[in-house]
Amino acid sequence: MEQETRRLKLTLAYNGARFQGWQLQAPTLHGKPQRTIQGALEDAVQTVCETHLRVHGSSRTDAGVHALGQVCHLDIPAGKWRVDWQQALNGLLPREVQVLDAAWVDRAFHARFDAISKRYAYRFWLSRRYVLPQRRPYVWTTDPLDPARMDAAARHFVGEHDFAAFTNAGSDIKGTVRTVTRLERAPVCCNHELEHVWHIEATGFLKQMVRNIMGCLREVGRGKLDPDAVPELLAGRERTKAPCCAPAQGLTLEEIFFRQPLSSTDPAATPNP
Amino acid sequence: MEQETRRLKLTLAYNGARFQGWQLQAPTLHGKPQRTIQGALEDAVQTVCETHLRVHGSSRTDAGVHALGQVCHLDIPAGKWRVDWQQALNGLLPREVQVLDAAWVDRAFHARFDAISKRYAYRFWLSRRYVLPQRRPYVWTTDPLDPARMDAAARHFVGEHDFAAFTNAGSDIKGTVRTVTRLERAPVCCNHELEHVWHIEATGFLKQMVRNIMGCLREVGRGKLDPDAVPELLAGRERTKAPCCAPAQGLTLEEIFFRQPLSSTDPAATPNP
Repeated sequence: MEQETRRLKLTLAYNGARFQGWQLQAPTLHGKPQRTIQGALEDAVQTVCETHLRVHGSSRTDAGVHALGQVCHLDIPAGKWRVDWQQALNGLLPREVQVLDAAWVDRAFHARFDAISKRYAYRFWLSRRYVLPQRRPYVWTTDPLDPARMDAAARHFVGEHDFAAFTNAGSDIKGTVRTVTRLERAPVCCNHELEHVWHIEATGFLKQMVRNIMGCLREVGRGKLDPDAVPELLAGRERTKAPCCAPAQGLTLEEIFFRQPLSSTDPAATPNP
Repeated sequence: MEQETRRLKLTLAYNGARFQGWQLQAPTLHGKPQRTIQGALEDAVQTVCETHLRVHGSSRTDAGVHALGQVCHLDIPAGKWRVDWQQALNGLLPREVQVLDAAWVDRAFHARFDAISKRYAYRFWLSRRYVLPQRRPYVWTTDPLDPARMDAAARHFVGEHDFAAFTNAGSDIKGTVRTVTRLERAPVCCNHELEHVWHIEATGFLKQMVRNIMGCLREVGRGKLDPDAVPELLAGRERTKAPCCAPAQGLTLEEIFFRQPLSSTDPAATPNP
């Protein structure tokens, strides 16, 4: 008989610099284990539960990508329902990973399948003269960029498009049509004048799609590509025709939006059982 | 005959976490050299000039304290005046230290003696449930704090006071009277809601004065000390009566203000010789 479980939803922040991304990885050829966010979480959960549990993430962030709002779920066996999961995990996780929230949810909730939209931020640092050490881990250092040109290019990405030219090989997801609902630069008031932050929101992203779009925006911003070349790149569907991928360290997964939770009489859906 | 020199003023940012403060330190008892900002700068300068030059800082920040606007000066010998000093030093310095600006100044300028005022920021993180990994290196994690109580206490520090109760032993500076011109919380718009940033500006600071004041504000904020106890603490002049010192990692030296530069016919004062 299967053990009774309750589903726990975790919201996470991490500095991804020293991780090989979200997803569990096989050890290297030299047998060295690879450090991943999912692995760190499953290790911490195992310490509490004394058994291995699988953690299901919303988004498989790449090596070096940061998060302020990654979401995952896992099923907690009876006997561990009274644990203060946020406190327990934050006491066990590496300091670069933190649980911002832990909540019991309906057992129909799925971190990946129920996500209807995601927002990422990409940060450019517009000078090669210096980079603030406080900001260096989170930005891509580049030449000065012209935001007006980038705005003009950004408009071409918004809407439903085939993003084949902006995804890298290796994805197991079928189809390359996605809908970008927002792509714009954040107001400058809160950032250093040399830090430009772009937000992108879509109902789904292909592998390295955000970084490929940002690599393209940067080429437009420094005058190497015309903003109106974007529709042609999209229509051509050839990755090799589009500019190079922006580095992972500038990227942060900011928020994941879910469909409204189903109403449920499941007792496990009650907060703080 | 003394070699001709020109005076160079540098503005610096650093993440002080892995440094033993600004000032050069003797090696440890085990002969291990101590990592300091001044030492890192003098090493980089020596690589360019092939001779050791002394760097004079404005403010001797403690071990672990950060900076966004430290200032120092040094005298560059003839033959090294055409060096792009910002580029050269940023190429040689550890990544945690960056030169934000390098400017030729009047040879009468002195980074320490000409400073008329300084501004520091102190950052509190108001939850023990989690700390954003992106902010952890720059904040003091504490209990929730009541800003209204802290505002009331802050008012007592502003103005000319004897800060003997808020300085630690070991300073070689005579007199403990200083003038605080500003002590207030920054608007929240730009920070995470759990991060409270306080700014303090004064014509001069005693050793650990900012951190001792912040330690006191925190005790007021969490209800352990009455805001109106501050005048009595100041009047008592006893360090041991005041709350404990706030940790270095929450502190950032933000800006140093200088007296108006003297007009000069000194050719070395010309920018970009």
